[in-house]
Amino acid sequence: MSKDHEAELEAHQLALVRWQQQAMQDGDKVLIIFEGRDAAGKDSTIRVLTEHLSNRNTRVVALAKPSDRERSQWFFQRYAAHLPAAGETVVFNRSWYNRGGVERVMGFSTPEEQEVFLRDVPTFEAMLTESGIKLVKLWLDVSKDEQAKRLEERRTDPLKAMKSSPLDAAAQEKWDAYTAARDEMLRRTASPNAPWICVRSDHKKAAKLAILSYLVDILAPGKIARGIPEPDPDVLFPFEIACLTDGRLER
Amino acid sequence: MSKDHEAELEAHQLALVRWQQQAMQDGDKVLIIFEGRDAAGKDSTIRVLTEHLSNRNTRVVALAKPSDRERSQWFFQRYAAHLPAAGETVVFNRSWYNRGGVERVMGFSTPEEQEVFLRDVPTFEAMLTESGIKLVKLWLDVSKDEQAKRLEERRTDPLKAMKSSPLDAAAQEKWDAYTAARDEMLRRTASPNAPWICVRSDHKKAAKLAILSYLVDILAPGKIARGIPEPDPDVLFPFEIACLTDGRLER
Amino acid sequence: MSKDHEAELEAHQLALVRWQQQAMQDGDKVLIIFEGRDAAGKDSTIRVLTEHLSNRNTRVVALAKPSDRERSQWFFQRYAAHLPAAGETVVFNRSWYNRGGVERVMGFSTPEEQEVFLRDVPTFEAMLTESGIKLVKLWLDVSKDEQAKRLEERRTDPLKAMKSSPLDAAAQEKWDAYTAARDEMLRRTASPNAPWICVRSDHKKAAKLAILSYLVDILAPGKIARGIPEPDPDVLFPFEIACLTDGRLER
Amino acid sequence: MSKDHEAELEAHQLALVRWQQQAMQDGDKVLIIFEGRDAAGKDSTIRVLTEHLSNRNTRVVALAKPSDRERSQWFFQRYAAHLPAAGETVVFNRSWYNRGGVERVMGFSTPEEQEVFLRDVPTFEAMLTESGIKLVKLWLDVSKDEQAKRLEERRTDPLKAMKSSPLDAAAQEKWDAYTAARDEMLRRTASPNAPWICVRSDHKKAAKLAILSYLVDILAPGKIARGIPEPDPDVLFPFEIACLTDGRLER
Repeated sequence: MSKDHEAELEAHQLALVRWQQQAMQDGDKVLIIFEGRDAAGKDSTIRVLTEHLSNRNTRVVALAKPSDRERSQWFFQRYAAHLPAAGETVVFNRSWYNRGGVERVMGFSTPEEQEVFLRDVPTFEAMLTESGIKLVKLWLDVSKDEQAKRLEERRTDPLKAMKSSPLDAAAQEKWDAYTAARDEMLRRTASPNAPWICVRSDHKKAAKLAILSYLVDILAPGKIARGIPEPDPDVLFPFEIACLTDGRLER
Repeated sequence: MSKDHEAELEAHQLALVRWQQQAMQDGDKVLIIFEGRDAAGKDSTIRVLTEHLSNRNTRVVALAKPSDRERSQWFFQRYAAHLPAAGETVVFNRSWYNRGGVERVMGFSTPEEQEVFLRDVPTFEAMLTESGIKLVKLWLDVSKDEQAKRLEERRTDPLKAMKSSPLDAAAQEKWDAYTAARDEMLRRTASPNAPWICVRSDHKKAAKLAILSYLVDILAPGKIARGIPEPDPDVLFPFEIACLTDGRLER
Repeated sequence: MSKDHEAELEAHQLALVRWQQQAMQDGDKVLIIFEGRDAAGKDSTIRVLTEHLSNRNTRVVALAKPSDRERSQWFFQRYAAHLPAAGETVVFNRSWYNRGGVERVMGFSTPEEQEVFLRDVPTFEAMLTESGIKLVKLWLDVSKDEQAKRLEERRTDPLKAMKSSPLDAAAQEKWDAYTAARDEMLRRTASPNAPWICVRSDHKKAAKLAILSYLVDILAPGKIARGIPEPDPDVLFPFEIACLTDGRLER
Repeated sequence: MSKDHEAELEAHQLALVRWQQQAMQDGDKVLIIFEGRDAAGKDSTIRVLTEHLSNRNTRVVALAKPSDRERSQWFFQRYAAHLPAAGETVVFNRSWYNRGGVERVMGFSTPEEQEVFLRDVPTFEAMLTESGIKLVKLWLDVSKDEQAKRLEERRTDPLKAMKSSPLDAAAQEKWDAYTAARDEMLRRTASPNAPWICVRSDHKKAAKLAILSYLVDILAPGKIARGIPEPDPDVLFPFEIACLTDGRLER
């Protein structure tokens, strides 16, 4: 089983390598945004995703908190500096969506700034996609219990100390506020050219497979037909507003 | 008269110094875009505008043509890197509007790219102004004869050699195409928060006075009431679509 | 055995996490340069090194080949942009040493440029270390046979296609030229504050352990005494000129 | 006389335009550093120097004080980002020499940092010049009385308010400390490839002429022989240590 998992993962990684060979040749520009709850598995998924990709043409961007000068600038300015050029694949480990998530729940920006953000995102992203950037947005979501378990691990496993943060406690305490923020953010920022893909990541292996499979599919349509499993509806589903109101994300 | 001109100019420069003192204290962000026909007087007006402003808080940005890598990126990316932070005044000597002007007339980008540009500009600029950037857009326009005279000067006065360009001839030969490009561009990119101000600059001194006066007025409303002449309707006028169709810009 | 290896590796990773916690608190600046023969194991070692480090305070930099504009600039300029600030750990996957290695062997720069480079490096690096940057330079070296085996794998394993390069063949064909370039480069650029550490990486696991162990040791002296094995002299050795002339690097 | 001055100035400006045409064609890289006492005339000289140069290929860089993050980086890092590429002329209005001047006198950095700076500058600059950058360093110096007069003007003329700074008073009060800092700095950072040129600027017009004449001469040797006056020994003199100890700079 674990061996099967390994094999499936490699099949997807291989498909992505082949995809990137073509993408570099064609000058494609790709931006993959990883967002989601704390401890939902973004880091480890990004590691698997990028493992065999070109290290010159792939960049993982995890911006530190802005300086005072940056904070005074146009909100998207510091992110814009990292957008992909021809042939490049850029992965954002968290992104401008911080404004609609942690900043809203923790009060790190004003409600007005958050409202402007939510209104601006669709037009900003529409400009990017229209300029030829392929934009993929992945939302990783865990159940409250699973998150509690993982945050506890971070607290107690010294190897995971770097993932631990003073904000971890709030992830649980303000669970409902994060849910409300997520629901509004995803609903208002999903668009035909920049849809959200939600992934339940309680089962890490299944989630990784689902994400890589999805990327293979959406980035290289028709190219790698065989060997890619159908999206498992329990794990991966295309974003629909319905899914946010009928509680399916919560399972 | 020249002495009067000098005195008026200094009065406006002084008003701008006072304005900037306050703007730096308040953390204002200001972006002034200078566009217009070749030889319409952008460079010399910018020199007068910035002469007494803070050299640490004022930047004049005149981007060279993009590298291949930049050309493949999101069109606004390389401009976004120069947007003002708190307390800064940025002056663009030409700007993203190249795409709707010289690029269109000379065929340096595709009609599709130009169409995307014209559609994107209002939303892009709306994001900037909503983020608190004060955006002023100035279009300097000369008559065909006056332009011919000035381009001839550039060709023959070695001191002005650096302003001369292989594209100068086209400015005259493709005069009507430039007019059409300007008319569509100004019409489609004027908005309440980012209006175009058109200035007839056949008379250089009058135009400079008009521009500085206008900037004093729009940047610091109510602050410097005395000594600022009413905009001379023959020289400066707020942008209206009418002005583009009834030929007034051409005089 | 593999389990032991795993455990040892984790022990080093843990030590590095603890080190980085302190380094971030102390505002340390760290630059780790990975250089070495093609297929010597740089990528996979960097993955293990950074696996549990902070993703906000750790950057892996693998610069693409320079643009024409960059090529005309001061050689170190584009690297300087990525140097660590307080609290940051930067890992260079290849670096300015390209000039003394592949550029020399393949003729991508002039002998004069290479000579200037070799003369400049010690003073450049001395400035960095004197400014408080902890600089660690690792040279990974494989035997000719092992390299041949790994390059063959890259050619035939599609999962490793991204590591394959048109220059691979030259790595073997010009083995002696690469050896001569390496010997001169290491000899002339080793200095007390920026020594080279050479690692024989024919045995990947042992090499990874040796490197992590060495980093734990050199980055946090006295902090993590227990559990760190003595450097195995067959694998890791501090750079000495002797090692280059008596053929030990070749085994 | 004023007309003669104007004519002479234009002759130099013209020579510089002709020089830059050639420099752009040849891909020359030029860095001109303006340093000197407060109110010595740097800003206005730079304005005259750049007036007719290409606005795409000439950049005037006046860096604001560093952010906290920049302050923690390698000292030269934020300056290195602005070094000239092929065909570019960069003018630094103040520069890294702040560390040896105002920072020393006002205690904005530690004596150790200043000592490291003075030791590093010659090697840093040697790397730049060896990489093909033409480096010209100009030190503008005024007498104590003249500086007092000019600082008083800044205090009272609102048009010059932006040049006024809280540090102005110290320029006079700590005159001797500034002199000592200057003497040591110039002595230790002058080198054959990066000499200091000292200019007495009590007479503004003469100083501007002298500087432009000198630049024409040093940047384009043999190119513009006629019309360039011999350096007036009362105004301009090549840097010699003697000049600092026999008080000639003080007059």
